[in-house]
Amino acid sequence: MAEQGQDGRQHGRVALVGAGPGDPDLLTVKALRLIQSAQVVVYDRLVSREIMELIPASAERIYAGKALGHHHLVQDEINELLLTLARSGRDVVRLKGGDSFVFGRGSEEALHLARHGIHFEVVPGISAAAGCTSYGGIPLTHRGLATGVQFVPGHLREGKGLDLRWDKLADPDTTLVIYMGLQSLPETSAELIKAGLPCDTPAAAIENGTTPRQRRVIGTLADLPERTRAAGLQAPTLIVIGKVVSLAGELDWFMTEGGGS
Amino acid sequence: MAEQGQDGRQHGRVALVGAGPGDPDLLTVKALRLIQSAQVVVYDRLVSREIMELIPASAERIYAGKALGHHHLVQDEINELLLTLARSGRDVVRLKGGDSFVFGRGSEEALHLARHGIHFEVVPGISAAAGCTSYGGIPLTHRGLATGVQFVPGHLREGKGLDLRWDKLADPDTTLVIYMGLQSLPETSAELIKAGLPCDTPAAAIENGTTPRQRRVIGTLADLPERTRAAGLQAPTLIVIGKVVSLAGELDWFMTEGGGS
Ligand SMILES: C[S@@+](CC[C@H](N)C(=O)[O-])C[C@H]1O[C@@H](n2cnc3c(N)ncnc32)[C@H](O)[C@@H]1O
Ligand SMILES: C[S@@+](CC[C@H](N)C(=O)[O-])C[C@H]1O[C@@H](n2cnc3c(N)ncnc32)[C@H](O)[C@@H]1O
Repeated sequence: MAEQGQDGRQHGRVALVGAGPGDPDLLTVKALRLIQSAQVVVYDRLVSREIMELIPASAERIYAGKALGHHHLVQDEINELLLTLARSGRDVVRLKGGDSFVFGRGSEEALHLARHGIHFEVVPGISAAAGCTSYGGIPLTHRGLATGVQFVPGHLREGKGLDLRWDKLADPDTTLVIYMGLQSLPETSAELIKAGLPCDTPAAAIENGTTPRQRRVIGTLADLPERTRAAGLQAPTLIVIGKVVSLAGELDWFMTEGGGS
Repeated sequence: MAEQGQDGRQHGRVALVGAGPGDPDLLTVKALRLIQSAQVVVYDRLVSREIMELIPASAERIYAGKALGHHHLVQDEINELLLTLARSGRDVVRLKGGDSFVFGRGSEEALHLARHGIHFEVVPGISAAAGCTSYGGIPLTHRGLATGVQFVPGHLREGKGLDLRWDKLADPDTTLVIYMGLQSLPETSAELIKAGLPCDTPAAAIENGTTPRQRRVIGTLADLPERTRAAGLQAPTLIVIGKVVSLAGELDWFMTEGGGS
């Protein structure tokens, strides 16, 4: 429902909706309802094709991918686009892969809307860390294997190396989940070993997690870079490092049921 | 559907289902379907009453709370219960708050089933970290405020203090989320300050997140223990420490809409 804005015009509302990692069955009930009744959907590349098919034919779809140009500029453009759409009086679904507040920049969009008096709501989604590991047979925590879990971004910053505190990350009792970490995996592996994490720490890479295209590569901290290269993994791929990966064989319920290879 | 077990009898299947933090709108589509068609539901205390009401009257409900006795014994009893139910040929929904693989011991139950030839599947849920922060207006990551996020358990072990690596946790650029951390908050706060995290690091406590009973207390690393005490917060409460909490005022979409106080 549109609402009266501070300037007296009827503004639409924006729902920042996490679409989960790919399987449409992992949409939340609220996300599904918002998608099916949407007037305009602004979506990212990571939203799976199965989920895109749920958008009604009557809804306008706007792709907010990062193909257009420089990363930061584009984020500003997306912020402005959401504002313009809401001001046009339409209710907007801003659809992102996983959870909008986990490496999703959803909060930048929310802040922009809040600062311009547009009502928004946040619908959390299953983040890749939860979805890909559940479907990959890897618990994030497990008594005796991991007391906690840490999510870090693995993308390289403009030509520079990774800007991570390796000393803090190299903890054998914590599960380390790396988003956007495929390209930088050789560096990550080397740095973690240098910081003291054992070479034989179990490690996994999950490509297209939770979808029929899911692929899983299991190895060790030392050999995962080579194994993922040999398997030809591509983005989106999630990296998981820690003793919990040792359970991936026994807990593999999804792949043995034909969900991947 | 029941399946032929290794011993030739028809076994049921077990679905380990994450129920999310409380709002039934945050159930996944798959979780809702499984709950609504359940024959037997084995549930924990954290599953909200709104979600319990979705279980059909025809289904058997079994409470697997921790009231019966010693923690570990009871976990073994739950493992055995799931096995017995599946062997009786019924399909079982094992329903837990949040995500079963995040401080939920779901993987212990899955392992027990796997080792006894029972088919299971894992349905990830919105974990408290994602749900409570989304509804609390706190992003887990935000450019310039937090590059990563860490989940740790804050429960005290049998009479002993917390067994956490404070040096690794005290990172001003990481959002720290503490599950089961209300009781130990005074100790956590003191240890993190001792380990170098600034006293004025923003910090929040969210009680009954995502439900109509949600309450949010905002403060700093130094004063949050006293503030939560003064407000009389009870479990379940999630603690969030980090610069991202500074956005909680501007991003508060849920409470201003009457969702809590
Ligand atoms: C920009 S981040 C967005 C994360 C998203 N907001 C979330 O919560 O999952 C993109 C990264 O998420 C991970 N990812 C997202 N979906 C995935 C999937 N289905 N399979 C594997 N990795 C995935 C990959 O590491 C990818 O590089
Ligand atoms: C044993 S852990 C289970 C966590 C659960 N598996 C999950 O993924 O959210 C219980 C702790 O989760 C947190 N929690 C779960 N639901 C919550 C809610 N609705 N509001 C606040 N905290 C919650 C609290 O810190 C609580 O002490």
